Amino acid sequence: MQHGGHNTFRAGSQGNGGIRVVPKPAAAQSIPPLLLDLDGTLVDSVYEHVMAWREALEESEIRLPNWKIHRRIGMSGKLFLPTLLRELGQKTTKAEIQSIEKIRAGIFRKKIPEIRMQPGAKDLLQVFDKIGAPWAIATSGERWQVDQLLKGFDIPAQVPVITGEDVAIAKPAPDAFVTAAQRLGVSPSDSIVIGDSPWDLLAAQRMKALGVGLLCGGYAESELERAGAYRVYEDPGDLLKHIEELGIQAE
Amino acid sequence: MQHGGHNTFRAGSQGNGGIRVVPKPAAAQSIPPLLLDLDGTLVDSVYEHVMAWREALEESEIRLPNWKIHRRIGMSGKLFLPTLLRELGQKTTKAEIQSIEKIRAGIFRKKIPEIRMQPGAKDLLQVFDKIGAPWAIATSGERWQVDQLLKGFDIPAQVPVITGEDVAIAKPAPDAFVTAAQRLGVSPSDSIVIGDSPWDLLAAQRMKALGVGLLCGGYAESELERAGAYRVYEDPGDLLKHIEELGIQAE
Repeated sequence: MQHGGHNTFRAGSQGNGGIRVVPKPAAAQSIPPLLLDLDGTLVDSVYEHVMAWREALEESEIRLPNWKIHRRIGMSGKLFLPTLLRELGQKTTKAEIQSIEKIRAGIFRKKIPEIRMQPGAKDLLQVFDKIGAPWAIATSGERWQVDQLLKGFDIPAQVPVITGEDVAIAKPAPDAFVTAAQRLGVSPSDSIVIGDSPWDLLAAQRMKALGVGLLCGGYAESELERAGAYRVYEDPGDLLKHIEELGIQAE
Repeated sequence: MQHGGHNTFRAGSQGNGGIRVVPKPAAAQSIPPLLLDLDGTLVDSVYEHVMAWREALEESEIRLPNWKIHRRIGMSGKLFLPTLLRELGQKTTKAEIQSIEKIRAGIFRKKIPEIRMQPGAKDLLQVFDKIGAPWAIATSGERWQVDQLLKGFDIPAQVPVITGEDVAIAKPAPDAFVTAAQRLGVSPSDSIVIGDSPWDLLAAQRMKALGVGLLCGGYAESELERAGAYRVYEDPGDLLKHIEELGIQAE
């Protein structure tokens, strides 16, 4: 596991005499901006995405095994389809990719009612609000899909929600997270990116942010660590239980 | 990566003079018995299993995230449900588990027509037949399900297919693979177990067999290696391309 070089110290932990109270620097009291992925991170939608892509590809007579699709979820379809089709030795035009994406969107839309929040996701966002943390959501998904998936979360109006339409280049490029940081008026490199896939963590590395991985998208701990995760938790609820490890005091 | 201590040598690779032809020992010419898992290994059914379990559990008002179910596929449901429910702090009776399993079977049955063979699976089995390799299939699935999933494979009548009904204790206990070896009349510890999940590899270790992992069930390479895989390939087709690495000559 990579560690981000956070140093801890305890002043005057032995005895009470002669302690000089050192005023905390302002930065130590501030809460780092938190930039969250959506699919697999806040909602348990990765497996439904896999099935929707698989079905859409089959309608176009393209056979891809589920695990290969799974390992690309979190990248934009526009970016992962050419990669996977190149492996199959197939070339596709932009028009074909748009057509597959359109079929996929129709199939996925029908699966949305089955999709649940990840354990602890709502609690985590409520804690962010309670402690006044600057936070935002950044995803490659389209606006209509994001709106559907965020139903039930009661996202405050001032929280930026960056979708595929808001950036020219989708994940694993850092643009979505960088745009989210800009909307918050914070520095991308001071932020913590929270995501379930190596693509989120790659984006975090490119923008010099800390990356925190969640297992609830179905990647292994080792894959997230290898992609640069500073810490890996099971799901948003598990992250919340350990939130002090990110230098955040929740109470 | 663990290596199984296979040594290779090239006699007389430099020049032709003075080479003494050493007769090969009989064991070097024999083909090791190959014991194959079914779900995730020969057929791309893991994601459909995940969805079927998730839906069946929801009907029983039990919420489990998809990734936690995914990581248990390959174990018998009888064994993995108590583990996961214990995590949730829930106790269930044997009758409840049987009832969930029955609902799951009904849901899964409807998904079977969507399930495809893994890339190269049929070719691999045909090569095993062509070279006279002793091989068998060992799964935790029930007979009706196995029969459906193996349609199209044309499994020769003499190939043992061990199902959940054939053994008292399902995977990750080694009983299914051991029974398969016994039916072939071979030693379990001389066999090579081929599977997509750490549960197959755990069973291989317990019976002192070599384990070979396949990524096509959705586990990461590192998870399979950590569970003791001697080699990891993408899918049956990728294994076939590298079959000499298992000490098998296919041509």
